[in-house]
Amino acid sequence: MTTQLEYAKRRKITKEVKEIAFDEGLTPEYVMRGVAQGRIVVTKNLRREITPLGIGEGLRIKVNANIGTSKDFCDIEKELEKARIAQEAGTDTLMDLSTGGDIDAIRRRILKETTIPLGTVPIYQAAIEAQEKHGTIVDMTEDGIFKVIERNAKDGVDFITVHCGINKESIERVFKQKRLMGIVSRGGTFLTARILHTGEENPLYANYDYLLEIAKEYDMTLSLGDGLRPGCIHDATDIPQIQELLTIGELVERARNAGVQTIVEGPGHIPLDQIETNVRLEKAICKGAPFYVLGPLVTDIAPGYDHIVGAIGGAIAAMAGADYLCYVTPTEHIGLPDVEDVKEGVIVTRIAAHAADLVRKREVAVKWDNEMSHARSEFDWEKQISLALNPSKVRRIREKRSPGEPDEEGCTMCGDFCAIKILKQYTRAEH
Amino acid sequence: MTTQLEYAKRRKITKEVKEIAFDEGLTPEYVMRGVAQGRIVVTKNLRREITPLGIGEGLRIKVNANIGTSKDFCDIEKELEKARIAQEAGTDTLMDLSTGGDIDAIRRRILKETTIPLGTVPIYQAAIEAQEKHGTIVDMTEDGIFKVIERNAKDGVDFITVHCGINKESIERVFKQKRLMGIVSRGGTFLTARILHTGEENPLYANYDYLLEIAKEYDMTLSLGDGLRPGCIHDATDIPQIQELLTIGELVERARNAGVQTIVEGPGHIPLDQIETNVRLEKAICKGAPFYVLGPLVTDIAPGYDHIVGAIGGAIAAMAGADYLCYVTPTEHIGLPDVEDVKEGVIVTRIAAHAADLVRKREVAVKWDNEMSHARSEFDWEKQISLALNPSKVRRIREKRSPGEPDEEGCTMCGDFCAIKILKQYTRAEH
Repeated sequence: MTTQLEYAKRRKITKEVKEIAFDEGLTPEYVMRGVAQGRIVVTKNLRREITPLGIGEGLRIKVNANIGTSKDFCDIEKELEKARIAQEAGTDTLMDLSTGGDIDAIRRRILKETTIPLGTVPIYQAAIEAQEKHGTIVDMTEDGIFKVIERNAKDGVDFITVHCGINKESIERVFKQKRLMGIVSRGGTFLTARILHTGEENPLYANYDYLLEIAKEYDMTLSLGDGLRPGCIHDATDIPQIQELLTIGELVERARNAGVQTIVEGPGHIPLDQIETNVRLEKAICKGAPFYVLGPLVTDIAPGYDHIVGAIGGAIAAMAGADYLCYVTPTEHIGLPDVEDVKEGVIVTRIAAHAADLVRKREVAVKWDNEMSHARSEFDWEKQISLALNPSKVRRIREKRSPGEPDEEGCTMCGDFCAIKILKQYTRAEH
Repeated sequence: MTTQLEYAKRRKITKEVKEIAFDEGLTPEYVMRGVAQGRIVVTKNLRREITPLGIGEGLRIKVNANIGTSKDFCDIEKELEKARIAQEAGTDTLMDLSTGGDIDAIRRRILKETTIPLGTVPIYQAAIEAQEKHGTIVDMTEDGIFKVIERNAKDGVDFITVHCGINKESIERVFKQKRLMGIVSRGGTFLTARILHTGEENPLYANYDYLLEIAKEYDMTLSLGDGLRPGCIHDATDIPQIQELLTIGELVERARNAGVQTIVEGPGHIPLDQIETNVRLEKAICKGAPFYVLGPLVTDIAPGYDHIVGAIGGAIAAMAGADYLCYVTPTEHIGLPDVEDVKEGVIVTRIAAHAADLVRKREVAVKWDNEMSHARSEFDWEKQISLALNPSKVRRIREKRSPGEPDEEGCTMCGDFCAIKILKQYTRAEH
């Protein structure tokens, strides 16, 4: 037995399951059962020394931050700074999506210098290496793709996005559909381009069993990517998207049988009224596999604010049952985020996750809000600041917009006409 | 006949109803019927020369921005700048909540220098004048309160918040309830304090008929304030809140019978899973009266980000049937907003409103998103910028994070590995 799933199937409670249960305030038996059923994953490569993280049903909603170089912004130190800031801001996981510079070296530095689960998308590196070696990305060989995946696994990567649901059947449906945005997933496009160019099936689909072998050896969780996710509201919840989900549902089953842990990735761009449907559909088709959504974005008209657009969708998705929210930053659709964008992205996504934790009645979440409200009613500003999701921002605003008198209890919104102060004055002490 | 409601009840289509119908892409008959039933209001004081605005069922979701001085920040020119910026950013209405300086003068300047409906909360001024004249806010006289209301009506204020649902019965329930935050509505607190201090009933409740007379004379819409709204997640959807809503439901009916237009104000702080219930309850109890929500805020732990917390709640509320979203700014719970906070508040609230307009299938809303997606797929950056909710922010990010080559089609997120570019390259031209 190598994987958490295999141990759980045999009702063995591992050290990792115990730690997760303690952290989440649940019984080890609950977490073990969830892992056994594939409803919870433990994202930890056997080679990596990190605190194990659980993602899935009944657990706190988790947040991911994407970092990584691109051709135009390729400074490893900057990406490490982003990783550090994202971790400080409270992200639960990181994904290194680097496409510029020495990708192996960047990944290894991030693995070394961070203490939370790291995910990657090996197909990016496979495509880049193919381009460097053979001239175009469609020259990716099966061997090249799997070599990169193995390198990631050996380095200790905890989970990888693999677009295994892309196949001839699903991409055919894309071209039958009048999509406005076609395919917007990078990995999905690389694999689609290769299918169109070579006529060969997607290697990640055709050789899925081999992929499972590698994943199993390192207990590397597979995050089944939605390569055909809609790229705009117009294309949401269409036939190719759901066709791919059906394929992914079959692949989840095969992974479980092989003892490999899986997460399922979801859109993307979804209008408000289709979010719950998307979550419930994934949970049904993929038999409760943890659902990892990107946003979702509920409108296309607000570039510069897509972290907020994504937080609206993320809160609704998490309330409906999504388990894991990938952040979106303010620069989405415009350019690569900088350090400040990364921080804002994490904080705003945590708001969405926490709002859903509240309605899932997580005790610590409810307590946190109540403590803030109590501090507010007591005019305990230091407590309010320390309880805030971003204390330094509250302190900055408070200092900039502080009342005339420094000992002022209230704030400059109401001054003397503060509702809380006045009510206290006119009610007896016991109220 | 003086009010839009009276005309509509007699099936007269007014000039204002025609203009609103044209603006909303609806038939005048639809709007007229909505006004007749009290499901739509036309917020326009008879004395004011502005383009009439409709709020309610079947119409575009509207956004309000609060501005106004406080004791600590009392600069009329700054408030006028906020009004101008808010209007530029696309707010549909403004509310002047001034509590500092010469309140009459400020209101009159704002009325003169803006072209959208203006609302006020006359009880603020009544309390301040009582304090100046008699020493405390609880010395407000009935006469004093109604004089201020009449002054607002005569000045041309289009709608006023009046906390008529506060009465001895409802406040008694507040003190029976173990609320964490007590009462957080300023107007609600002023009136509660007066009841507790004098033992007299709330004049706005006791003399509601007189209030209706004034409102009717100027066709000033009454926005029935939720003085007992919850001030934190812990207090959401509790007995005092709903008790007040029941009273408001009765008052809506009385206003309709008197030919006076009404809006109903709603919370406040509501967890994600109670928002829809709150909206449906208001619509049922108040027989379809337009619902005007403040946020709602879905968690208390994110001061500095409450505009985002409110946009999450606002989107869900609007999807469920709320008609009118009052913005929240980043400085809520910390201090009075500045000009930049006002702008951010309006834009973020418009995102929530628009996301809901999309799922209400408003044709112009859907077209806007599709145009953005088309521009995105064509790499038409100028078009994307012009279609963005905040073009200057997109331009700023694009310039800061622009690709190496100035003629670069894509962006620095993906560079050469742009999904859209690669897909186009490998599919035939007709796709």
